Amino acid sequence: MADWLAALHRRAELRAKAGLTRRLRPRAAGDVVVDLAGNDYLGLAAHPEVTAAAGRALAAYGLGATGSRLVRGSTDAHHGLEAALADWLGVDGSLVFSSGYLANLGAIRALTQPRTLLVSDAHNHASLIDGCRISGAETVVTPHADPAAVAAALAAAPGRPAVVVTESVFSVDGDLAPLAELHAVARRHGALLLVDDAHALGVLGPAGAGGVAAAGLTGEPDVVVTATLSKALGGAGGVVAGPAEFVRHLVETGRTFIFDTALPPAVAAGVRAALDLARAGDDLRAELAERTALAVRRLRAAGLEVSAPDAAVVSVTAPGPEAATAWAADCADRGVAVGCFRPPSTPDSRSRLRVTVNAGVARADFGRALDVIVECTP
Amino acid sequence: MADWLAALHRRAELRAKAGLTRRLRPRAAGDVVVDLAGNDYLGLAAHPEVTAAAGRALAAYGLGATGSRLVRGSTDAHHGLEAALADWLGVDGSLVFSSGYLANLGAIRALTQPRTLLVSDAHNHASLIDGCRISGAETVVTPHADPAAVAAALAAAPGRPAVVVTESVFSVDGDLAPLAELHAVARRHGALLLVDDAHALGVLGPAGAGGVAAAGLTGEPDVVVTATLSKALGGAGGVVAGPAEFVRHLVETGRTFIFDTALPPAVAAGVRAALDLARAGDDLRAELAERTALAVRRLRAAGLEVSAPDAAVVSVTAPGPEAATAWAADCADRGVAVGCFRPPSTPDSRSRLRVTVNAGVARADFGRALDVIVECTP
Ligand SMILES: Cc1ncc(COP(=O)(O)O)c(C=O)c1O
Ligand SMILES: Cc1ncc(COP(=O)(O)O)c(C=O)c1O
Repeated sequence: MADWLAALHRRAELRAKAGLTRRLRPRAAGDVVVDLAGNDYLGLAAHPEVTAAAGRALAAYGLGATGSRLVRGSTDAHHGLEAALADWLGVDGSLVFSSGYLANLGAIRALTQPRTLLVSDAHNHASLIDGCRISGAETVVTPHADPAAVAAALAAAPGRPAVVVTESVFSVDGDLAPLAELHAVARRHGALLLVDDAHALGVLGPAGAGGVAAAGLTGEPDVVVTATLSKALGGAGGVVAGPAEFVRHLVETGRTFIFDTALPPAVAAGVRAALDLARAGDDLRAELAERTALAVRRLRAAGLEVSAPDAAVVSVTAPGPEAATAWAADCADRGVAVGCFRPPSTPDSRSRLRVTVNAGVARADFGRALDVIVECTP
Repeated sequence: MADWLAALHRRAELRAKAGLTRRLRPRAAGDVVVDLAGNDYLGLAAHPEVTAAAGRALAAYGLGATGSRLVRGSTDAHHGLEAALADWLGVDGSLVFSSGYLANLGAIRALTQPRTLLVSDAHNHASLIDGCRISGAETVVTPHADPAAVAAALAAAPGRPAVVVTESVFSVDGDLAPLAELHAVARRHGALLLVDDAHALGVLGPAGAGGVAAAGLTGEPDVVVTATLSKALGGAGGVVAGPAEFVRHLVETGRTFIFDTALPPAVAAGVRAALDLARAGDDLRAELAERTALAVRRLRAAGLEVSAPDAAVVSVTAPGPEAATAWAADCADRGVAVGCFRPPSTPDSRSRLRVTVNAGVARADFGRALDVIVECTP
């Protein structure tokens, strides 16, 4: 084996010893398992209206977008989705990217000038961390959900442009950032607030418009929202939403927009259909909230250490990475898919099971799945 | 208008004065224009077998993948595509990402250790540049297609791990990197060679296996190949291909793989069908080469300055950004879509029309499109 591969092999063995191996496991079509691992919160990924809309656009446009939208033109599917997203989120404009990851990289860089200070929450998602890194801007990481620490970081850089970067609902523990406080702090210091609404869009806020809307920050001129279209909207792609002038700036200068093949039109069309369902889906959201509360009660009653979820992500502490892996594998063997989060993909050294509540699975299955989780986490 | 937006507005006005405004223009379904702007080289994006395969997977799996494959499981569509890609490219393994952009970010970071030196071609794509930046590694940019400069950069860092980063066919001018020489230089210095085969996969090499295959480097243990699935394969997504141990390393540590929603199964299935067609498509490649040669002859005969394309990208120098924009707009008005590349998306200060040859458009349309280009570039 070549030297560099032997070195990678040694690193893989170290991970294995620490119980941190990751392996791809097969997933069957038609999901024979009860899915409490994916982020299809409202059960829209396989909704017939969603797949039908995608199928129509597939027939009309073909599979891929065949290029960047600036080069290849901008289809109705993309424009329609962007208009609907802007309307839903109550902002002037929005721009769709091929993923939430690239949306975050693009948004953060577009908000950064030479002297900009980025103030980033310690629990932020990898794509936000990478966005800070790729921007080249000085970045201060503040303790999790701590507006006073953010204020101190901003106060220490008077007169400099600054951006406060946070998720709304954090992806690992499902807790909600203190968005109103963060916005007040940012505004007091003339800073902007970037909120990644990935796990709240479709789940929180009036008509599911997300965590920013829930915090009463809709349309504020110093707030930029990003989100993925792959969770409650059941598709793929990402969006950056905010003032029209900022969206124009992204179109003209955003590297991860300009130099990237556009989201397939069929995916954009499917997400558009999901958006309409999500926006009208107060019943789905009520069901989701009820199931989340039920999950917390049931798992706590079994003696498990369970997070206090503000949306639909429920995190269960495991004694260690091996236990987390074994628990998740036992659940899978019994037909229930749950997430297994271990370092380094957790913001601390704790390993967890991550249960994402799904309003789309049958109610009886959901209840049985909770029983299985309890039985598999002795 | 808020201060920050006023500042963006001033920058937009400066771009407008310099003729560098970028605007999204509508694209109709069913493409009423002759497409010489997109990268659907073999005309597979709307091939009935491709859309049918995508449609079947859409029905089986729903629209989105609903999560990272490590969390949500790995569908047959993904596995089948990865096996077919590895077989086609003659490597041990491959891993599919949600875009070529994220594949490049992931591959470069995964090849980087603390002391690694990256040696990057001056014409490299934005995603490769960003990959170098995000890796945090020291990066030396060498003059375009210059193995001697690469050798000098490597010689200046003796004993350090190093990676030479290049495209095979460069996206703006369509010229081919001296891959065999670069590989010889890299090997002499114990460095790895990363080749982004985006514009050569399906277009060059035996059975369309790409620029690396064409250069006789198939399966070399010190070569890693990346590519997008959005050009000749007509879909979306990206791939990193190479030794199995490296692919395993990517699965376990690649941030842009782990923390990103997987490519929609329907897209993976459609790309898989396109791969089979591309692999068997020697007739399409012959047609593509013939059309490319025809385009060069016709445009040169009209007195235009035309690149010497090694694949199917033909670049035509324009006197300036305004002329390039006007030329492309005139072509579009007459039913022919061509790319318009202006700084800063060109590696130098030259503006260009970029004509991507497409074996899928009707032959007569292709000939007429060349006439239109000649008439619109006085
Ligand atoms: C908070 C957060 N931001 C961004 C992303 C990235 O979105 P995408 O999967 O569309 O790249 C994710 C998850 O994937 C996420 O959880
Ligand atoms: C050379 C090259 N690499 C990478 C990419 C990015 O691939 P994707 O569009 O799938 O993100 C592109 C074009 O889009 C490209 O031209």
